[in-house]
Amino acid sequence: MTTTTSAIAAAAPGAELAPTTIERRDLRPDDVLIDIAFAGICHSDIHQVKQDWGTAIFPMVPGHEIAGTVAAVGSGVTKYQVGDRVGVGCMVDSCGECEYCRAGTEQFCVKGNVQTYNGVGFDGENTYGGYSRQVVVKDAFVCRIPEGIELDVAAPLLCAGITTYSPLRQWGAGPGKKVAVVGLGGLGHMAVKLAVAMGAEVTVLSQSLKKQEDGFKLGAKDYYATSDESTFEALAGRFDLILNTVSAKLPISAYLGMLRVRGAMVNVGAPGEPLEYNAFSLLGGNKVLAGSMIGGIAQTQEMLDFCAEHGVGAEIEKITADQVNAAYERVENSDVRYRFVIDASTIGA
Amino acid sequence: MTTTTSAIAAAAPGAELAPTTIERRDLRPDDVLIDIAFAGICHSDIHQVKQDWGTAIFPMVPGHEIAGTVAAVGSGVTKYQVGDRVGVGCMVDSCGECEYCRAGTEQFCVKGNVQTYNGVGFDGENTYGGYSRQVVVKDAFVCRIPEGIELDVAAPLLCAGITTYSPLRQWGAGPGKKVAVVGLGGLGHMAVKLAVAMGAEVTVLSQSLKKQEDGFKLGAKDYYATSDESTFEALAGRFDLILNTVSAKLPISAYLGMLRVRGAMVNVGAPGEPLEYNAFSLLGGNKVLAGSMIGGIAQTQEMLDFCAEHGVGAEIEKITADQVNAAYERVENSDVRYRFVIDASTIGA
Repeated sequence: MTTTTSAIAAAAPGAELAPTTIERRDLRPDDVLIDIAFAGICHSDIHQVKQDWGTAIFPMVPGHEIAGTVAAVGSGVTKYQVGDRVGVGCMVDSCGECEYCRAGTEQFCVKGNVQTYNGVGFDGENTYGGYSRQVVVKDAFVCRIPEGIELDVAAPLLCAGITTYSPLRQWGAGPGKKVAVVGLGGLGHMAVKLAVAMGAEVTVLSQSLKKQEDGFKLGAKDYYATSDESTFEALAGRFDLILNTVSAKLPISAYLGMLRVRGAMVNVGAPGEPLEYNAFSLLGGNKVLAGSMIGGIAQTQEMLDFCAEHGVGAEIEKITADQVNAAYERVENSDVRYRFVIDASTIGA
Repeated sequence: MTTTTSAIAAAAPGAELAPTTIERRDLRPDDVLIDIAFAGICHSDIHQVKQDWGTAIFPMVPGHEIAGTVAAVGSGVTKYQVGDRVGVGCMVDSCGECEYCRAGTEQFCVKGNVQTYNGVGFDGENTYGGYSRQVVVKDAFVCRIPEGIELDVAAPLLCAGITTYSPLRQWGAGPGKKVAVVGLGGLGHMAVKLAVAMGAEVTVLSQSLKKQEDGFKLGAKDYYATSDESTFEALAGRFDLILNTVSAKLPISAYLGMLRVRGAMVNVGAPGEPLEYNAFSLLGGNKVLAGSMIGGIAQTQEMLDFCAEHGVGAEIEKITADQVNAAYERVENSDVRYRFVIDASTIGA
């Protein structure tokens, strides 16, 4: 016996999203049934629907930025009660036994974690994401959304938030540190807010100065256009950390030139084409080029608690279910400030 | 008044090295006059003589792997006495005042450190290196060579040793860590010896298996040929640290695939052409690509002390002054196991 719930799905690669119904599994002892309130639209949802990243599973219900309330819990769940405010991000299961899972870094599970959608669970069933009224998730992959963050602005934290929070922490953003954020989109605007909340001095590096006013409102101290070549000279040797949130083929060596000695440039965006760098641009100054992929469940909870404490939420534009296809187009045109969030009550309504 | 000393110099870019005499400055209060016993031949000497790295200063006396004994000291020198065994590496001066110099990392001096040769001192005079009978160096840039290392096997430690020791320390080579060394040349063989002495489990990644026996003698536990594509599959996810000592255009993403989660690939070799990597190869597993350039004076002394304690010296082939041009050719053909060291007593003899 399963629960039928309303959802929005792409029936085939590249198809428009359309209303449908899907089945959610009956609660296992460690499961939580969540009434979804909001689901964020991540650019990766669009890539997956379009099958940009390899063969995907259809029909596909995207959505890995989920915020809602607990509607029911399995017999063995003690951590959550009906009515609790909770969130789910990019993962819904992992082996739980490998060294990485035991260390709370389920994103590195050696068996491969189970993605929230476009994945296959250890039970062999396809997973369906957050563009839906309800979802069933193992309690260990559910995070608590603290009082003090509204569910709508909390939803994007579950991917955009943790994806930027994790490298900012790993690479030491904080008081006395100069942090540059490349790109002011969904990820970038969260990176600015989080780095500012951590106490760093933040500079936005954007292609143009179009969003400069927004950048300052988000707490950035400086804002430079990377289309202006003098930016790279003006900022030579400036930053302890450059967090690159864009998925374009940037001139990596030019960006490395803006790092201080022992500074790090961390990529969370991933362009399809190879990137180039000059070995000397890493050698001189012992510089670092790194990647970072989401974050573990424990750190996701830490990030949510941090956001509640510092009053950090996403800047969102709320939409109804029937606006999702139009929203996808606007995301692809970088026409969103800064995250679309689907009001799940409009799905199947 | 200056001291005239015998040397071997290249008169012009790409010229053969030939005997000559040069002047060394009179001792300033903080200077040390060193009777050079041995000078190592670093591949970068050849690049500089050939002007591969931009306009150089001629005549050029190469050599930044210098070992010898103190012949005289300036009036203010208290650290060294006549007869002390000492070494000089790639730098002979720096501003001493910037944050990096104050932190003992003179290689990052914001005013630029003074190179041992092919450099210009803060007094405006050109610097001449270790292919010479004597050299005058500021005491702060002279290191002590502990008893227990012969001067001939110590000389290469001043560049090849510190260049590999520094990143091995920075990136945590030690017990329980799996370290791969790419390339078994002058730098690579030092990297293997040092990483083994630090307690790491060391694998050599070389183009062929030609030097496999040497690798095992140096302490490596494994030895793989990178010309064999199955190597990359066999070693997927294996290493905590890959130290890349070669100056060739390697397929970086393939090497990143051999790193564990959060592993680092550190480059100390610098090919002229740009390197390529795929962003996903850094993202998946939060991996790191870094560069490292020599090391500071304090760390160079630490390295020498470490080598004395662990009985680590370079594997050398001793040559006389008249063999230097032939040795250069052999270095360019990778025909040296593993470092040529010039017996300075044969210079001008």
